[in-house]
Amino acid sequence: MKKLVQDKQHFLKDMLEGMQYANSDIEVIHDTIVVRQSKKQSGVAIVSGGGSGHEPAHAGYVASGMLDAAVCGEVFTSPTPDKVLDAIKAVNTGDGVLLIVKNYAGDVMNFEMAQEMAQMEGIDVETVIVRDDIAIEDVKQRRGVAGTVFAHKYAGYLADQGEALSTIQSKVATFIEGIRSIGMALTPPMVPTTGKYGFDIDEKDMEIGIGIHGEKGLKRIPVEPIQSITDQLVERLVEEVQDEEVIVMVNGMGATPLSELNIATKYVAQSLQSQGKTVLSWFVGDYMTSLDMQGFSITLVPYQEEISKALNAPTASQYFAN
Amino acid sequence: MKKLVQDKQHFLKDMLEGMQYANSDIEVIHDTIVVRQSKKQSGVAIVSGGGSGHEPAHAGYVASGMLDAAVCGEVFTSPTPDKVLDAIKAVNTGDGVLLIVKNYAGDVMNFEMAQEMAQMEGIDVETVIVRDDIAIEDVKQRRGVAGTVFAHKYAGYLADQGEALSTIQSKVATFIEGIRSIGMALTPPMVPTTGKYGFDIDEKDMEIGIGIHGEKGLKRIPVEPIQSITDQLVERLVEEVQDEEVIVMVNGMGATPLSELNIATKYVAQSLQSQGKTVLSWFVGDYMTSLDMQGFSITLVPYQEEISKALNAPTASQYFAN
Repeated sequence: MKKLVQDKQHFLKDMLEGMQYANSDIEVIHDTIVVRQSKKQSGVAIVSGGGSGHEPAHAGYVASGMLDAAVCGEVFTSPTPDKVLDAIKAVNTGDGVLLIVKNYAGDVMNFEMAQEMAQMEGIDVETVIVRDDIAIEDVKQRRGVAGTVFAHKYAGYLADQGEALSTIQSKVATFIEGIRSIGMALTPPMVPTTGKYGFDIDEKDMEIGIGIHGEKGLKRIPVEPIQSITDQLVERLVEEVQDEEVIVMVNGMGATPLSELNIATKYVAQSLQSQGKTVLSWFVGDYMTSLDMQGFSITLVPYQEEISKALNAPTASQYFAN
Repeated sequence: MKKLVQDKQHFLKDMLEGMQYANSDIEVIHDTIVVRQSKKQSGVAIVSGGGSGHEPAHAGYVASGMLDAAVCGEVFTSPTPDKVLDAIKAVNTGDGVLLIVKNYAGDVMNFEMAQEMAQMEGIDVETVIVRDDIAIEDVKQRRGVAGTVFAHKYAGYLADQGEALSTIQSKVATFIEGIRSIGMALTPPMVPTTGKYGFDIDEKDMEIGIGIHGEKGLKRIPVEPIQSITDQLVERLVEEVQDEEVIVMVNGMGATPLSELNIATKYVAQSLQSQGKTVLSWFVGDYMTSLDMQGFSITLVPYQEEISKALNAPTASQYFAN
């Protein structure tokens, strides 16, 4: 396995220590929780997290304007409830905490347990669950993928506006219902903690509808020119997004060079145009990755003025820019 | 070849069009030149460029606080003198133009020819040449690599301060003399325009001292734990950087996942510490890449107050943050 690692048992620890060296605005507490160096003194605190391997998600979004804490599990592994509880207690200002959770069984269960434990200690906690991956037909089963990062940004914005926990929970939950994402991969991720590829794929094939842990998608077919790929992905997306005006994220999966991500963006733009969509705001970059998987995802959000304002509001996170 | 491309003949064109869709602050002119949407009305204009495949360099740095134009050649191919001249003429405000050129024979020749043509048209043009890659022993032969991006930032800052062309040229040239970089790679880049890997390397080996076009480095040895790699790279760097206080860039080569770049950062920090260095400013990310090569480089700059201020000054480029 060719990886830049010292000891695969310390992958998460080393990664978080590296982040902390380079970013004096964050601090790592309890080994696996990233918080802001300057804790917010009032207002709702926003907490997210999940398995690692999706960098910059989630720790890279701990910054003014976005998250107050990220609870980091081992690679592709949910953090335990006690760690989530530690995070809640570390950032709670007394005005309550919103948990943003991706829809995976382990995450949902562990964050829910932490919520209950925190509530028993008298802390006000609400949860939103992100299910934006339309590669899954059944809405209840849909995985949380790149759209989660938009939820971080919107929640962070609302918290900065001084909104109450119940308002933020309700607004972010409604926002999440409108987010749709779909991804594809050319190559599998190499999982550094196991030394194995996330899945096997033929040298000529790609996977359409891939998950961010390399989960099986809609179909596996020979690689096609990018226009054909974006046409297929956009066709599936617009089945569920009727609005003409949209906000778009083109998300790199971790090892996609920026040149190709830009090429993909051109054809996403053309595919959307041919479907009668008008893009009012673009986000292109690596937001929610899968280790060193090559591929990308497209996320569509119906345009709304407040959402656009929130997504384009300043944040100190170097990983959320447009 | 598994790549997100439509037609390898249109790789550059498609990439620049994609950039333009996603970034309303830039404009592509003459097919291969990226300029700011709002041209500067006065002050020295900063122009860089070279072969493509190093994204976000150079087009991603066309933004307030950094470059006024980037002249983009085909993948790993110098832009022609007439394109460089077009760029100079497009951004010249009357206060002169500084060309920032990486030390490759084709780039140096073509930018020099453009400079002469521009001067014949009465435009004041100066050049600085970046040679920061210490994998090459002979200083004159050293390649321009990631340190070039620091030169963009410093030059853009000085231009915004209203400095004259001769002052900027002289300050940036002096700054460049102090920049030292060295890189390594685990995997070669796949060159999309040829469908071939940039070099062959054994499944167990890495290349120390790699160039950003996959040029041969100092040695090829079996992959080692990251601490051993950073120790070797830092040891070589500190031979040439005597100052105790330094500014550091840890640069991903294009397909290095952020998790591993952060792990590398931890060990860069420790290797520097054990050499008695104090890091006053960190830059970690993909600044100067080589398509989808996996690996990283370290750049050291002696700390100076003005340099630190310049490198940390705001820019609208989403690719230069810290």
